[in-house]
Amino acid sequence: MEIFIQPIGKLINEFSKLPGVGKKTAQRYAYKIVNMSKEEAEEFARAIVECKQKVRYCKICGNFSEGEVCDVCKTRDKSIICVVRDPRDVVAMEKLREYKGVYHVLHGVISPMEGIGPNDIRIKELLARIDGSVKEVIMATNPDVEGEATAMYIAKLLKPLGVNVTRLAHGIPIGGELEYTDEVTLSRALSERKAL
Amino acid sequence: MEIFIQPIGKLINEFSKLPGVGKKTAQRYAYKIVNMSKEEAEEFARAIVECKQKVRYCKICGNFSEGEVCDVCKTRDKSIICVVRDPRDVVAMEKLREYKGVYHVLHGVISPMEGIGPNDIRIKELLARIDGSVKEVIMATNPDVEGEATAMYIAKLLKPLGVNVTRLAHGIPIGGELEYTDEVTLSRALSERKAL
Repeated sequence: MEIFIQPIGKLINEFSKLPGVGKKTAQRYAYKIVNMSKEEAEEFARAIVECKQKVRYCKICGNFSEGEVCDVCKTRDKSIICVVRDPRDVVAMEKLREYKGVYHVLHGVISPMEGIGPNDIRIKELLARIDGSVKEVIMATNPDVEGEATAMYIAKLLKPLGVNVTRLAHGIPIGGELEYTDEVTLSRALSERKAL
Repeated sequence: MEIFIQPIGKLINEFSKLPGVGKKTAQRYAYKIVNMSKEEAEEFARAIVECKQKVRYCKICGNFSEGEVCDVCKTRDKSIICVVRDPRDVVAMEKLREYKGVYHVLHGVISPMEGIGPNDIRIKELLARIDGSVKEVIMATNPDVEGEATAMYIAKLLKPLGVNVTRLAHGIPIGGELEYTDEVTLSRALSERKAL
């Protein structure tokens, strides 16, 4: 005899496909669904299907979009492009409510270890966007080996096109303590020290 | 401008309804859905709807069931009834693959603080199940204040019916250490010590 009846077992299985969700958590989620009203459960299911149906990638920046071109590309300052690895990085930047330019989502970073080369991410598409109107490209890939390498690689391609390439600053996080800052970050903070 | 486009925002909102899921986790889940194939997402949605459609409560024990009476009630030894708070406790017991009797799910415990009295949980239904064929009722509610009180209350009702009422043993967990055992558990382990 199975411990879970089939419909619950099936749902637990589906929830287990979500990132970081094990059997136990999936079980809690499934029980929550069973205890929802029929309407609530149907709305949940509909949100999943609609999300899949309606969301596509903006043909300019590669971020999630409902239309062919996303609202950011339609309405914002196109002279500054912020290059990020994936859509969740756009969310991080947007939360600032400070950045007024547009984005370019690479959908990955160059990683020879994982067999991801420059042609596997949206670099060509970025180069195609560079015309006289673009004043600055901000490289906002993560400060890890792949992110740094990708930023350097793209910067090298962009500079001959006469565009100003910048990189987000690295250093000790605000509120962080010297004592607990890792050595790589501290060394970076030292070498990139600024005049007061 | 919203940070998330509407279909993603809606799905994040739905995932946030799951227990222990905050905005950040809900966002990760939603992105996972966006990155699934259309078929996978539809199967996920279908599992939710079907779980809600097909799962009901067994009219005897109150556990989740596909039919009017669950498989456990149909096939197992009815002379022993294990009384638990909710369906997830049945899962915990079933994982042992040791218990051969049937269950009775109370769907709650008596809790004056939360306004839950004896009539709000399935005690009447339990009493109705007690006939000459029931030899033992195992009280397996949690060892907390409400669980203990509920076990005592039900035991008092059952004893006059001539049924043997037992309670799961409490004490130091196997593999636990005396040093790190909380005082209530240790005191319980001492007072319930057994002859070797």
